[in-house]
Amino acid sequence: MNDVHPPLPAVREAVARALAEDLLPMGDVTGALIPIDILMRAEVMAREEGVLAGRLCATEAFAQVDPAVVVTWLLDDGEELEAGAHIATVEGPLPSVLSAERTALNFLCHLSGVASITRRFVRAAAGHARIRATRKTTPGLRALEKAAVRAGGGVNHRGSLSDGILVKDNHLGGLSIEAAVRRARLRWPGRSVEVECDSPEQVEVACSAGTDLVLLDNMTPEQVADCVKLVDGRCLVEVSGGITLTTVGEYADAGPDLISVGTITHSAPIVDIGLDLPDVEG
Amino acid sequence: MNDVHPPLPAVREAVARALAEDLLPMGDVTGALIPIDILMRAEVMAREEGVLAGRLCATEAFAQVDPAVVVTWLLDDGEELEAGAHIATVEGPLPSVLSAERTALNFLCHLSGVASITRRFVRAAAGHARIRATRKTTPGLRALEKAAVRAGGGVNHRGSLSDGILVKDNHLGGLSIEAAVRRARLRWPGRSVEVECDSPEQVEVACSAGTDLVLLDNMTPEQVADCVKLVDGRCLVEVSGGITLTTVGEYADAGPDLISVGTITHSAPIVDIGLDLPDVEG
Amino acid sequence: MNDVHPPLPAVREAVARALAEDLLPMGDVTGALIPIDILMRAEVMAREEGVLAGRLCATEAFAQVDPAVVVTWLLDDGEELEAGAHIATVEGPLPSVLSAERTALNFLCHLSGVASITRRFVRAAAGHARIRATRKTTPGLRALEKAAVRAGGGVNHRGSLSDGILVKDNHLGGLSIEAAVRRARLRWPGRSVEVECDSPEQVEVACSAGTDLVLLDNMTPEQVADCVKLVDGRCLVEVSGGITLTTVGEYADAGPDLISVGTITHSAPIVDIGLDLPDVEG
Amino acid sequence: MNDVHPPLPAVREAVARALAEDLLPMGDVTGALIPIDILMRAEVMAREEGVLAGRLCATEAFAQVDPAVVVTWLLDDGEELEAGAHIATVEGPLPSVLSAERTALNFLCHLSGVASITRRFVRAAAGHARIRATRKTTPGLRALEKAAVRAGGGVNHRGSLSDGILVKDNHLGGLSIEAAVRRARLRWPGRSVEVECDSPEQVEVACSAGTDLVLLDNMTPEQVADCVKLVDGRCLVEVSGGITLTTVGEYADAGPDLISVGTITHSAPIVDIGLDLPDVEG
Amino acid sequence: MNDVHPPLPAVREAVARALAEDLLPMGDVTGALIPIDILMRAEVMAREEGVLAGRLCATEAFAQVDPAVVVTWLLDDGEELEAGAHIATVEGPLPSVLSAERTALNFLCHLSGVASITRRFVRAAAGHARIRATRKTTPGLRALEKAAVRAGGGVNHRGSLSDGILVKDNHLGGLSIEAAVRRARLRWPGRSVEVECDSPEQVEVACSAGTDLVLLDNMTPEQVADCVKLVDGRCLVEVSGGITLTTVGEYADAGPDLISVGTITHSAPIVDIGLDLPDVEG
Amino acid sequence: MNDVHPPLPAVREAVARALAEDLLPMGDVTGALIPIDILMRAEVMAREEGVLAGRLCATEAFAQVDPAVVVTWLLDDGEELEAGAHIATVEGPLPSVLSAERTALNFLCHLSGVASITRRFVRAAAGHARIRATRKTTPGLRALEKAAVRAGGGVNHRGSLSDGILVKDNHLGGLSIEAAVRRARLRWPGRSVEVECDSPEQVEVACSAGTDLVLLDNMTPEQVADCVKLVDGRCLVEVSGGITLTTVGEYADAGPDLISVGTITHSAPIVDIGLDLPDVEG
Repeated sequence: MNDVHPPLPAVREAVARALAEDLLPMGDVTGALIPIDILMRAEVMAREEGVLAGRLCATEAFAQVDPAVVVTWLLDDGEELEAGAHIATVEGPLPSVLSAERTALNFLCHLSGVASITRRFVRAAAGHARIRATRKTTPGLRALEKAAVRAGGGVNHRGSLSDGILVKDNHLGGLSIEAAVRRARLRWPGRSVEVECDSPEQVEVACSAGTDLVLLDNMTPEQVADCVKLVDGRCLVEVSGGITLTTVGEYADAGPDLISVGTITHSAPIVDIGLDLPDVEG
Repeated sequence: MNDVHPPLPAVREAVARALAEDLLPMGDVTGALIPIDILMRAEVMAREEGVLAGRLCATEAFAQVDPAVVVTWLLDDGEELEAGAHIATVEGPLPSVLSAERTALNFLCHLSGVASITRRFVRAAAGHARIRATRKTTPGLRALEKAAVRAGGGVNHRGSLSDGILVKDNHLGGLSIEAAVRRARLRWPGRSVEVECDSPEQVEVACSAGTDLVLLDNMTPEQVADCVKLVDGRCLVEVSGGITLTTVGEYADAGPDLISVGTITHSAPIVDIGLDLPDVEG
Repeated sequence: MNDVHPPLPAVREAVARALAEDLLPMGDVTGALIPIDILMRAEVMAREEGVLAGRLCATEAFAQVDPAVVVTWLLDDGEELEAGAHIATVEGPLPSVLSAERTALNFLCHLSGVASITRRFVRAAAGHARIRATRKTTPGLRALEKAAVRAGGGVNHRGSLSDGILVKDNHLGGLSIEAAVRRARLRWPGRSVEVECDSPEQVEVACSAGTDLVLLDNMTPEQVADCVKLVDGRCLVEVSGGITLTTVGEYADAGPDLISVGTITHSAPIVDIGLDLPDVEG
Repeated sequence: MNDVHPPLPAVREAVARALAEDLLPMGDVTGALIPIDILMRAEVMAREEGVLAGRLCATEAFAQVDPAVVVTWLLDDGEELEAGAHIATVEGPLPSVLSAERTALNFLCHLSGVASITRRFVRAAAGHARIRATRKTTPGLRALEKAAVRAGGGVNHRGSLSDGILVKDNHLGGLSIEAAVRRARLRWPGRSVEVECDSPEQVEVACSAGTDLVLLDNMTPEQVADCVKLVDGRCLVEVSGGITLTTVGEYADAGPDLISVGTITHSAPIVDIGLDLPDVEG
Repeated sequence: MNDVHPPLPAVREAVARALAEDLLPMGDVTGALIPIDILMRAEVMAREEGVLAGRLCATEAFAQVDPAVVVTWLLDDGEELEAGAHIATVEGPLPSVLSAERTALNFLCHLSGVASITRRFVRAAAGHARIRATRKTTPGLRALEKAAVRAGGGVNHRGSLSDGILVKDNHLGGLSIEAAVRRARLRWPGRSVEVECDSPEQVEVACSAGTDLVLLDNMTPEQVADCVKLVDGRCLVEVSGGITLTTVGEYADAGPDLISVGTITHSAPIVDIGLDLPDVEG
Repeated sequence: MNDVHPPLPAVREAVARALAEDLLPMGDVTGALIPIDILMRAEVMAREEGVLAGRLCATEAFAQVDPAVVVTWLLDDGEELEAGAHIATVEGPLPSVLSAERTALNFLCHLSGVASITRRFVRAAAGHARIRATRKTTPGLRALEKAAVRAGGGVNHRGSLSDGILVKDNHLGGLSIEAAVRRARLRWPGRSVEVECDSPEQVEVACSAGTDLVLLDNMTPEQVADCVKLVDGRCLVEVSGGITLTTVGEYADAGPDLISVGTITHSAPIVDIGLDLPDVEG
């Protein structure tokens, strides 16, 4: 599984930005009180259960602060964390480690949060539907959050407005579904077309127009089941709209191929991961 | 109240980055299917209650996509939202509005989420302690989240490692509390010094050393009350460590001046805010 | 047609970068010899025939150098240029116009070059196949070149490695076609899958595996015709591999849906567009 | 010859930008289907003859995607390529190599294209005149294209508006040639001054005014020969204006010192360079 | 002392920017005349006395131009330089060293200038007051100059408007001192508050309002002494306003805790540091 | 005189960077205490004499903080300032003006400092030689400082390593003067060549080799006079090396064409310019 990590160029830039936020202009004013020649070995520990994500970001944060800091990983993105799990070991000058600690942990905790809630949705869907992430990501972190979703076992919907056609109700102001699908085939041949539908009637129109996916928005599980029957394999069926951990199982049982969940990126609580310092060498 | 907004340069840069994520390289492939000369008037609506934040970001997102889009605000950051509240009106070419919609909403929903949970903590503390945001912010969004906390009625702790001295247990590996405070006064005169304490003994040492604040980490409300009594006004008392909406009231009643809550920045669920299109003019 | 323009954020950044290249550190040392208070009206003229692209970039280049320069366009991206066509009028302080001139023209000439050669391929294909641009774009200009291709009447293939699955021979070192398509469906559901094929046997395997498109690489028109027959509508057929203006007609006649042409982005000669100064007012 | 490479800071930035274009937000979705632990050795091969340029960019592209990829070069910028020439060997994890391949090749093919057409012009001029590159470069790539021109055996004219005085007809709206040269000497002493001339009369005026170079624009070879005679060594003579591979020999024979050719930067077709994968190790 | 260096991320970015200024687009046109294979060993030498600062920047400048250049330091930031002191040895390819030389020295000379004048102020104050740097720094270099001040033995006042409250006369247009301090405590609890005072009356008001520091602006040493007496330990006393090396001793004798000096950052003359080339190996 | 201003793109970027330094992450914490609806009119005043520079930067600083702030200039870059001169009027919301004040003034004071010391050197040279700025500029501010030198009446030497050939002693390790000039003519035809000389012998060699300028480094005025005689008009003569306001007159009298002075960019003390607030409207 090499797709659980974000592209390295995205990691580098996000980390540089985060460190600039935390270290400018005067650096770590508290760390400056500690002698530079104290070396340390610290452990990155899970304080609660979850799924790991953000390894590349954490490594990069320590390296950008001080190339002398070495991080050794015992676990990789996508692996399960138990409370108390030893995730990585960090070795290097004490002030450098402390200066990078919060930035490294902010990435780890947030991205592991995304991976963890994704995994919970994936489990709740019990394999009856795939869990998809939307474009409702935290601004500036899309590449990282999309990877964290994959680490959690979910899949990615559109990466951006540029890479997938999704005709929503707001587009239909001056355009019929048929016209939208036809134009999409013409202007962007070879790309999947998805149409958001609020009713079985729209689903039928979209299928007849040859859409690749229908997105059933804000329907009940029963309505979803009816639409799945109506579609009858003519295209993929995706469901969205306020689906929670409580309701996702019912929706999955209704038979759609995909379930889009904004919550996994826009409202994921962190996983509590911290740095323990068992040893300080003089 | 002019401190509820983030600095404009931070807004401009965060929005540019978010739009690049969502529009490159081919722009809005679905929006491209709509004739450019359809003008629209849409309404930004709260779909649930909360506190507004992110106005400058949303305005900027529409403007960067197309200067012809005009946004008129009925509410400002820090104001309460009821479900159904009309927040703003957006007017301009339909494809431009749709291309900027998600980016604008991602900022609004996330930052309003931060403001809203902050306000709930503020209320739960019932005025007995101020709620402070930590450095546990989403990487790349610190300036925006710190402002959202203020919009919610909270206050900001350190903006960065560079702007406040907080001696934590990890710093005390090679350094006593007294030495830390003394060095801090020497190297960074005129700055507040805060010392994290795990026990009444440490609190006493920190007070005697002349710290400006003690941070009581992971104590029970009872222990906090004891420490407040021990400090007896010699410095400010701050509390932190896994405090929730359920427990914050008890902690506030214990008498500290400040309660630090990472949750309000690192685990705030969004407020659901959407764009409704009542009118499309041909 | 609103998809012939690149996203404005991409325009702004590319223009800022290009102006930095041309004006730093000392600005326009020749323009500095001219009195600043000479106003001018100049005309952007086509010196040869072609198709216009790059309007937003040229406007932005003048505006970033001096907001006092006003550009009025008579033609838009995608429109045909005859030799001698009057494209736009530029008015403002003479030194400002001259300082921005080359940067504005570099964008206009290059992007119009891309649009023009695309149009020629489109015409040569005589409507029997769509002309698609590849990822073989000039580094740093992908968003702009992809838009220029659309202005020329072509369509865009993948915007990036991130937005479309194309299994090439190099991927098949450790992976069969069937496995690739199956994994792609699993990991990236709802996305089109394309498989590059060198032989009818591979085409058959790909079709049976359920690919959405086959890319016939380096085949003769006859081989393409055979494969089109073999595919028989089971998926879209795309052709690529050294196709020229001379051969594209034959390939199009062979019946594929799409013809990918790297030349239109990586080897497009410019269209000669210049700035004429009929009037200088003192 | 150390001037055939662009400055490393320019390389780093251009490559980072190009990779961001191609890998965000979801990375290489096709490469993600391949196991990460397959190592490969691939060969960068010329598929047609030309002159190599862009080595630093290609090395940097692989390194930025994955530091574990190692590139070993058999040829350097400026060296001749025969069709089939082995240029470099690339070793590393298969998905990493494939993710960086197109970006690396886009630089190599484009810059080698610039170097190659430059060399052809240089040869066609048969040593009677130097071939100079203009400011008509691809926006964002000036440093790289200027180096590629040098790799091809050409020389660089102005790097930017900031680094050389070239008085063109558009500057002469409010300024005589004498005044322009006089002012240039005054304001920018120690810099070469060049004056664009359309007629022998202007050439004489420019020479008398003490210009360092005259640029004969859009003259026939005969007119150039006359002007060379007229100048008689008083300054350098440069020729420009639509000079092609067919006509450059005649112009060179007319005796100018320099021939400016926009084509070598703005309309250079690529050299076809590809990546062959003879070995994949499990 | 690990606080004499600026944060590495700030160093990297400032150096990249400076090299872009100096090397684009054509690189070092003079260095290009030298064979690349000449190796050199050069020495960074102080040509006058002072205090060293900028080591990280100089190392980074050489590394960004060519990773093959190795710099070995004999002295560190904060150490005294005598005229003729050997500061560092630089080894590598001659053209690379020369291409980075000026940028490396520009940082070293400027930052050592800041450190040196700071040290002179520190000495003139004879330990009776700490010398503080203000926000009057060179735009774009704040992190580096603040570190250089620390290397010189001074201390840092606010890093930015964001990290410290300083109520100045301009703020008091619509706000009394009492209101300002009260609001500051409310909105930014736990932060030091400083109030600028022009008269003993204001000092008394500020003290009574509970300020942490008073800033006595543009007072004579006698007036300062009176105010120190008036304050009588209720808060820290800082002095500012046109204090020079000549007058700083008198001000220090008047008993304030801190003396703010804009000169040390905004008007520091450089320390002359150069590169000597004793050995060039063929 | 339109060359006294830096290019606008350089201004925009430098100001954005400076504001980020001063306002992130929490904005102006003191300004936040003031009601946003207080409008003000303030005056930018010279507190000492000098020469103005930096107008575009100051305007840009206020505009980037708040587009509602309007700046009206009474003086332009290059104009003389008396102590007490009214330079500009600033109108807008009080907190916005105060938030941008320091950044705007930092540019104005520093760049006016460069312009002012340049003017003093220009006057001291009494028109017998032009004063030239070197590459010894403050890192990151080259475009702005070069413009300030022009505003002061000086001229610009090389803008960068890329835009002028200057053969220094360090280049001559593996290269004779003749070879350097010959190679320079070959590789960079049409560019001025300057050779640094330490002795009359080198001057003679350089002249014979056809250099365009000789740079006499670290000579006495008498030696300079001898070299000027020796050169006898064969090329321009420039002088450099520790020239001060005291000695520049003597050097100018010795007859060189140009005098290079690092001091005017690397060690210019600021001109004291401040913001006065006569009126605050409620």
